Amino acid sequence: MDDKLHEECAVVGVFGHPEAANLVYLGLYSLQHRGQESSGIVACDNERMHAEIGMGLVADVFDSARLRKLPGNVAIGHNRYSTTGDSKLANAQPCLIEYSEGSLALAHNGNLVNAEEIRAELGAAGSIFQSTNDSEVVVHLIAQARGATFADRVVQALSRVRGAYSLLLMTEREIVAVRDPHGFRPLCLGKLDGAYVVASESCVMDLIEAEFLREIDPGEMLVIDAQGPRSYRPFNETTPKHCVFEHIYFARPDSFIFGEDVYRVRKLMGRSLAKESPADADLVVPVPDSGNLSALGYSEESGIPFEMGLIRNHYVGRTFIEPQSQIRHFGVRVKLNAVKRVLKGKRIVVIDDSIVRGTTSRKIVRMVREAGAREVHVRISSPPNLFPCFYGIDTPNRDELIASTHNLEETRRFITADTLQYLSIASMMEAFGDKKGNYCRACFDGNYPVPVNGRGGPQQLPLFKNDDPHPFDPHII
Amino acid sequence: MDDKLHEECAVVGVFGHPEAANLVYLGLYSLQHRGQESSGIVACDNERMHAEIGMGLVADVFDSARLRKLPGNVAIGHNRYSTTGDSKLANAQPCLIEYSEGSLALAHNGNLVNAEEIRAELGAAGSIFQSTNDSEVVVHLIAQARGATFADRVVQALSRVRGAYSLLLMTEREIVAVRDPHGFRPLCLGKLDGAYVVASESCVMDLIEAEFLREIDPGEMLVIDAQGPRSYRPFNETTPKHCVFEHIYFARPDSFIFGEDVYRVRKLMGRSLAKESPADADLVVPVPDSGNLSALGYSEESGIPFEMGLIRNHYVGRTFIEPQSQIRHFGVRVKLNAVKRVLKGKRIVVIDDSIVRGTTSRKIVRMVREAGAREVHVRISSPPNLFPCFYGIDTPNRDELIASTHNLEETRRFITADTLQYLSIASMMEAFGDKKGNYCRACFDGNYPVPVNGRGGPQQLPLFKNDDPHPFDPHII
Amino acid sequence: MDDKLHEECAVVGVFGHPEAANLVYLGLYSLQHRGQESSGIVACDNERMHAEIGMGLVADVFDSARLRKLPGNVAIGHNRYSTTGDSKLANAQPCLIEYSEGSLALAHNGNLVNAEEIRAELGAAGSIFQSTNDSEVVVHLIAQARGATFADRVVQALSRVRGAYSLLLMTEREIVAVRDPHGFRPLCLGKLDGAYVVASESCVMDLIEAEFLREIDPGEMLVIDAQGPRSYRPFNETTPKHCVFEHIYFARPDSFIFGEDVYRVRKLMGRSLAKESPADADLVVPVPDSGNLSALGYSEESGIPFEMGLIRNHYVGRTFIEPQSQIRHFGVRVKLNAVKRVLKGKRIVVIDDSIVRGTTSRKIVRMVREAGAREVHVRISSPPNLFPCFYGIDTPNRDELIASTHNLEETRRFITADTLQYLSIASMMEAFGDKKGNYCRACFDGNYPVPVNGRGGPQQLPLFKNDDPHPFDPHII
Amino acid sequence: MDDKLHEECAVVGVFGHPEAANLVYLGLYSLQHRGQESSGIVACDNERMHAEIGMGLVADVFDSARLRKLPGNVAIGHNRYSTTGDSKLANAQPCLIEYSEGSLALAHNGNLVNAEEIRAELGAAGSIFQSTNDSEVVVHLIAQARGATFADRVVQALSRVRGAYSLLLMTEREIVAVRDPHGFRPLCLGKLDGAYVVASESCVMDLIEAEFLREIDPGEMLVIDAQGPRSYRPFNETTPKHCVFEHIYFARPDSFIFGEDVYRVRKLMGRSLAKESPADADLVVPVPDSGNLSALGYSEESGIPFEMGLIRNHYVGRTFIEPQSQIRHFGVRVKLNAVKRVLKGKRIVVIDDSIVRGTTSRKIVRMVREAGAREVHVRISSPPNLFPCFYGIDTPNRDELIASTHNLEETRRFITADTLQYLSIASMMEAFGDKKGNYCRACFDGNYPVPVNGRGGPQQLPLFKNDDPHPFDPHII
Repeated sequence: MDDKLHEECAVVGVFGHPEAANLVYLGLYSLQHRGQESSGIVACDNERMHAEIGMGLVADVFDSARLRKLPGNVAIGHNRYSTTGDSKLANAQPCLIEYSEGSLALAHNGNLVNAEEIRAELGAAGSIFQSTNDSEVVVHLIAQARGATFADRVVQALSRVRGAYSLLLMTEREIVAVRDPHGFRPLCLGKLDGAYVVASESCVMDLIEAEFLREIDPGEMLVIDAQGPRSYRPFNETTPKHCVFEHIYFARPDSFIFGEDVYRVRKLMGRSLAKESPADADLVVPVPDSGNLSALGYSEESGIPFEMGLIRNHYVGRTFIEPQSQIRHFGVRVKLNAVKRVLKGKRIVVIDDSIVRGTTSRKIVRMVREAGAREVHVRISSPPNLFPCFYGIDTPNRDELIASTHNLEETRRFITADTLQYLSIASMMEAFGDKKGNYCRACFDGNYPVPVNGRGGPQQLPLFKNDDPHPFDPHII
Repeated sequence: MDDKLHEECAVVGVFGHPEAANLVYLGLYSLQHRGQESSGIVACDNERMHAEIGMGLVADVFDSARLRKLPGNVAIGHNRYSTTGDSKLANAQPCLIEYSEGSLALAHNGNLVNAEEIRAELGAAGSIFQSTNDSEVVVHLIAQARGATFADRVVQALSRVRGAYSLLLMTEREIVAVRDPHGFRPLCLGKLDGAYVVASESCVMDLIEAEFLREIDPGEMLVIDAQGPRSYRPFNETTPKHCVFEHIYFARPDSFIFGEDVYRVRKLMGRSLAKESPADADLVVPVPDSGNLSALGYSEESGIPFEMGLIRNHYVGRTFIEPQSQIRHFGVRVKLNAVKRVLKGKRIVVIDDSIVRGTTSRKIVRMVREAGAREVHVRISSPPNLFPCFYGIDTPNRDELIASTHNLEETRRFITADTLQYLSIASMMEAFGDKKGNYCRACFDGNYPVPVNGRGGPQQLPLFKNDDPHPFDPHII
Repeated sequence: MDDKLHEECAVVGVFGHPEAANLVYLGLYSLQHRGQESSGIVACDNERMHAEIGMGLVADVFDSARLRKLPGNVAIGHNRYSTTGDSKLANAQPCLIEYSEGSLALAHNGNLVNAEEIRAELGAAGSIFQSTNDSEVVVHLIAQARGATFADRVVQALSRVRGAYSLLLMTEREIVAVRDPHGFRPLCLGKLDGAYVVASESCVMDLIEAEFLREIDPGEMLVIDAQGPRSYRPFNETTPKHCVFEHIYFARPDSFIFGEDVYRVRKLMGRSLAKESPADADLVVPVPDSGNLSALGYSEESGIPFEMGLIRNHYVGRTFIEPQSQIRHFGVRVKLNAVKRVLKGKRIVVIDDSIVRGTTSRKIVRMVREAGAREVHVRISSPPNLFPCFYGIDTPNRDELIASTHNLEETRRFITADTLQYLSIASMMEAFGDKKGNYCRACFDGNYPVPVNGRGGPQQLPLFKNDDPHPFDPHII
Repeated sequence: MDDKLHEECAVVGVFGHPEAANLVYLGLYSLQHRGQESSGIVACDNERMHAEIGMGLVADVFDSARLRKLPGNVAIGHNRYSTTGDSKLANAQPCLIEYSEGSLALAHNGNLVNAEEIRAELGAAGSIFQSTNDSEVVVHLIAQARGATFADRVVQALSRVRGAYSLLLMTEREIVAVRDPHGFRPLCLGKLDGAYVVASESCVMDLIEAEFLREIDPGEMLVIDAQGPRSYRPFNETTPKHCVFEHIYFARPDSFIFGEDVYRVRKLMGRSLAKESPADADLVVPVPDSGNLSALGYSEESGIPFEMGLIRNHYVGRTFIEPQSQIRHFGVRVKLNAVKRVLKGKRIVVIDDSIVRGTTSRKIVRMVREAGAREVHVRISSPPNLFPCFYGIDTPNRDELIASTHNLEETRRFITADTLQYLSIASMMEAFGDKKGNYCRACFDGNYPVPVNGRGGPQQLPLFKNDDPHPFDPHII
């Protein structure tokens, strides 16, 4: 993927472990790919909540001293995606507030499509806001809800919101983990030494050596307290609409989400791509690491040898300061380099997972050609990205999506490839077998499962970025 | 490679470019894999030298403000390897001193085997030292040398030292780049907008879009000043003895060093390994990224499918603080995760470039087995590492090298593999074709091309580390 | 004063100046003595508000880069006092929120006595809180108020709160400055280049060379917008109850507050002390700098020569880290040193402004005696501190106030002085002449002008500190 | 004093105390007034030396973590003065080097007048230098010296240098403290719990509660090792030439140096000034704190009442960042404020210790007049500063010393005072009684006790500053 789309966040929660905050920290570390702007943990000992939240990567925000300030057996954490516009500490999560019942911490992955409406209503009634986060409306709704138990109040509050949420809520007594009825974003449950762990992806369980129990279901609310976890289904049942882009790009390939291996799905997409759009070429070369597995699949299916002809700099991801240079713009070169003697004189199939604005793809094609490739055939393991996402992926406006403003041939010319092919929607869905109905693919076909006002028009939520803020975004490499 | 060996450093120099320090910074960034302990740049405008040196990674040491403090058309820079013992700012390079002729800056990659002797002599005559670097003796020798030109004085000084050096020296008028007569460490020359660039590896030229001109020859001294570069051969000619480990592990695969593509050599070693030590298995899986290319070669030669069954966390490399945890030691898990559904029930060939202490390999084998692999066959694309290096690689003592203390079968049992095979020295050398005589392979066979006192015995230079200081060393992942 | 009492804060606002934030910064700098825990500025350009808030001193929180992030013609700022308990960024001010009418920033000096009640009410209705500040209730009340103008809503909100407040509120259109009906805390108005400046003390006007116009009256609300300042008197008129401790200790001696020169009042108190409690002594020595002016007054009245026999370290005030030492506790020595040859063999009158716990006075007496003084007579220029303050001064509980737990003779013995005398309440009030009825002296006589629940009992507000957290508090020296 | 002269440094050493570095830290803290640019400590445990050195104030450079890195029973420390030119870490002290005999650390207060010559000689013989400090030649000379003991080698080295030095040298076995034969700079000896303490001023002993034993004599070398201190007199005896400015301005008033109380001397100078240059005035007002004691003396002698009509901001001294303001230059206002109602309508005698460039005095006179003073009479408690210092005080060039370029009347007009008088040299010397011959007063009369090439001419040492770098220098206030 180039230019890049960004996932909003990662969430991790631990209930009942003496090193709760340490485990959350490790979990956030292994979910760094889901958000690099800020990282935070709120831990709860028997008396009160302690928050440590900062801008930057998990490893930059937390050190031993800061982790020691997070005592207690319960903790939740959050990584937020990287952007420029409203990148400020007030927007970082977990969000921690005081209300009539005590303290409440919240960590949210997803996006609420009616947050603005609710915010306007709450505001009209005199509510005040600390952030521009859509998530802040949830804590207001909970504080105003009436009900015998915390779980009741959460259900009452969530009955008001629509959109995508994989949500962790922490009080002095419990953690509540909820997934919206469509299950747009992943969320899973594990167990470690008698404690319960909730996390966006299963790779967290591997790192901390927790037992992976299962995914939390769409529409399920899990209350974990001293009595252990109890499951509730407070919402009307509906067809799941998992985000297909989690499989295409966001999730780690070693995670298991939406009932599938990410690794397997990506390879299958590469295989389908080879069947659908073969290329007469000498070598298959992935754009590392996002294109690695689909390239392997493409190579296996096509029989064209796989070569790692583009090498990534391991250290990109750090805050590289491009010198204010009259020399030239380094762009993708800082992240990738072509291996000349692999590519020279060869006909190359370059595989990537997606194209957003096309500018990065154009640079890669140029780099491959300068390295001596005779032909450059670009194959993309997902369909053309035509519509913005309203459920938690930070996409540009439609007029910046190259597939929306250029047809296939125009896009090919723009990126200067000899040929260009995308995977068809149908073939993509094949990778999910009989679960193909359970996926949201609105970014490809515009069919939004949860209605959004003025989809993509002027009312588009302000959190959608207008421009790629990070020429050296860590995730894309 | 596990546990890891460490290269001492990277050097970059630019002469005659208005953004000299910016270019050196970019070069150091692309050579971050050669040293993560400290980074420094000394730039020279017409009047004086300016130094900015700090502990940590290039991207952490330098920001725009600091780069702006480095004006001038000439600059040299240095990355130093990561260790704990004498990890201090006084040892970071470039070293900048004042002497009778003005200012002098030095950046050194390699290790001098007679530094201690010279240091003792200099000390006896009243010299004082600021660091424990072997490189500091060179500036003393230059300051005490007599000769008409700076180049003369450099030659006179270098006639005293033995060992490995790819060296950059900067005065107010020139940069001098020298490689020791055996050419242990790489060094190459490029050109950009009329300016000259010298760097440890050719990938620097790719990043800054300089033209790669050629490697500096073993024993060559290049003087670059306002008149352009002039080449000298001040030393008696001798057989080159390039460090074979640069090809096995240190250099970036997109670099061209010692007249060879690193990428091609690594794949060849993998192919030879497959011929020499086949395995009856279902999948070839590299330890990423160090085993990637040899695994590809192994897969191609053996016909066993290649799968990326171990996934690395992109963000490791940052200063991960392992929480002071009673939980467990996370070790390699933070860096790598096994993809269960790829490995489950399969017979796996795990490919890595080398084994040092064996502890990391043991963890990886365990991880692969826990992911469900039926058999684990470890294949190493270099020979058993038996002897310490005295020419610039920071190896443990012999009694910590598992190949030195355990025979093949014992090592296999230690790492708990079903089978274990190394590449033979002969096959490894095949990868270099008719240049095979030009390589130092002392770490495998103990034949040290430059004599060292008590090779590996008690006189071993103190800079050799006794223990792997970095459980999460960024380079190994 | 020893041990010390702490004022809650300083406020500064500027309306209509192109360098509004810079001026606020300078103002906060000159009011550093009123709060050292945190410092913050919110500036407003035509479009939005920008906040920069941090823990620490003004000069540590702000540098040029941070000030440049505060554009606009309007700004307010705040210094908060130093404590340990709930010393956290969430409690630092100005507080900045979003509500139905836009953005709102608030900076508050004082303490609301019914904040807990209102908070409970608001909480019961579903409001959420970000901080443990009493000030946060004010923004909630404003957001919920109904009224045609912002000023109307402010009045409606303030009609609910009781206690001490000198308050600045900023919207995108105006600054509103209000002082509670009793005028516990100071607040004054100035003018600079056509812009208006509001600040806690008049010394701000001197520093930025603004014209001092007048004090804002008790109960006055000043609305400053594009039309200039307009004055309102929304509250029922009542007798002013200025905090007498502002004159005794908090305010800078070069400020003019409550219609009086601080300098003049302090000297008068010293003179009255000399009349009321003379001493047969050789020298008058102030505890610098808090006792300087009353010592001068004492010396003038008594004719006993004034000597600066205790010298303060200019650099105390910075975050001195007392080494974890088995040696000894350095305490007051780090701040003060006795001049031996001045004190030796002499009978000394030591003058300070107040005694809180007595421990610092005890150390000072010991120091003076060790320097060779023959007799040590302690004279305090205010009455015994018997009751806690509920209007914004952070006093210890009654059982930690030495005057509350020890009678005069017991206190004298505790601090090991030869004699000890306090100024009487009557004499203290003399210093204010015919305005003496306009002062709150509840800390001396327990007559609280605004009723407080359980005054000093268990319901005492949690923000009162239980212990002096700062052995080297910058203000006391 | 205005504009300001700067002392080079402070030194502190402790031998034989388990908390040696902590004590040195406390000592440096109490000597912060002697140098604010950098601070450093080198501690020695039985095996090796540990250095922690940083730019900034003592309290900014050191925290608990950093102090814990300085184990051992022996330590020396140094504060360096604040300037801009060559303000860099390489110049900060203590200087720590390795040479043939082991490690050597040095801390130096003073200035060597023949450092450049020796440096040229050493350079010609091939020595290299790390800094532009004059002190670095001393370690070279020691390393090259021959002699049975370390003390012998120190004497041999010091026989080569001329100028001012109060010097601490530390090896693994001893601390050597030496004062140059004229004793330009102070140095004293104390004892604490069996350990020995050496420090620039006696106030160090007071803080750490060490017993003040005595001053180290001019020309005395004290060797302190496991056998205790031993005194040597290796130099020819000569008349002491103590720096008179230590008494006028540099030393803390609570210190005892050159056999005199600083406090007493300053008051005497004020008394003499009153006798010599009376003023027909209403009030005596010091420029705090440098003019405090002479103002007290002036007031006592003249009978004119003393008032603290200029108030200093306690918090100046911190790194105040003047906002890049078009408003106005704040200069002295940030540090001082006039108390209007004290000064209004009065005839004021303003007392300061010295005038350097005159610009600060001019601002103070203006401030006093704007506060309403009817007349402003400036009295300076030292003679006109006509000549630069070569012995360790950082004075401007002669053409920047206002007394050198303007006669008395011109100076008076420049600073806009009604009258201006300096203390005469004769009266100043009276303060020292029968020791008056033991003082260097070259800055007033140009009689340099140690010859200097081209005194004040072009050969002037480069370390003399050309301009006041610090509009808000912490020392002057």
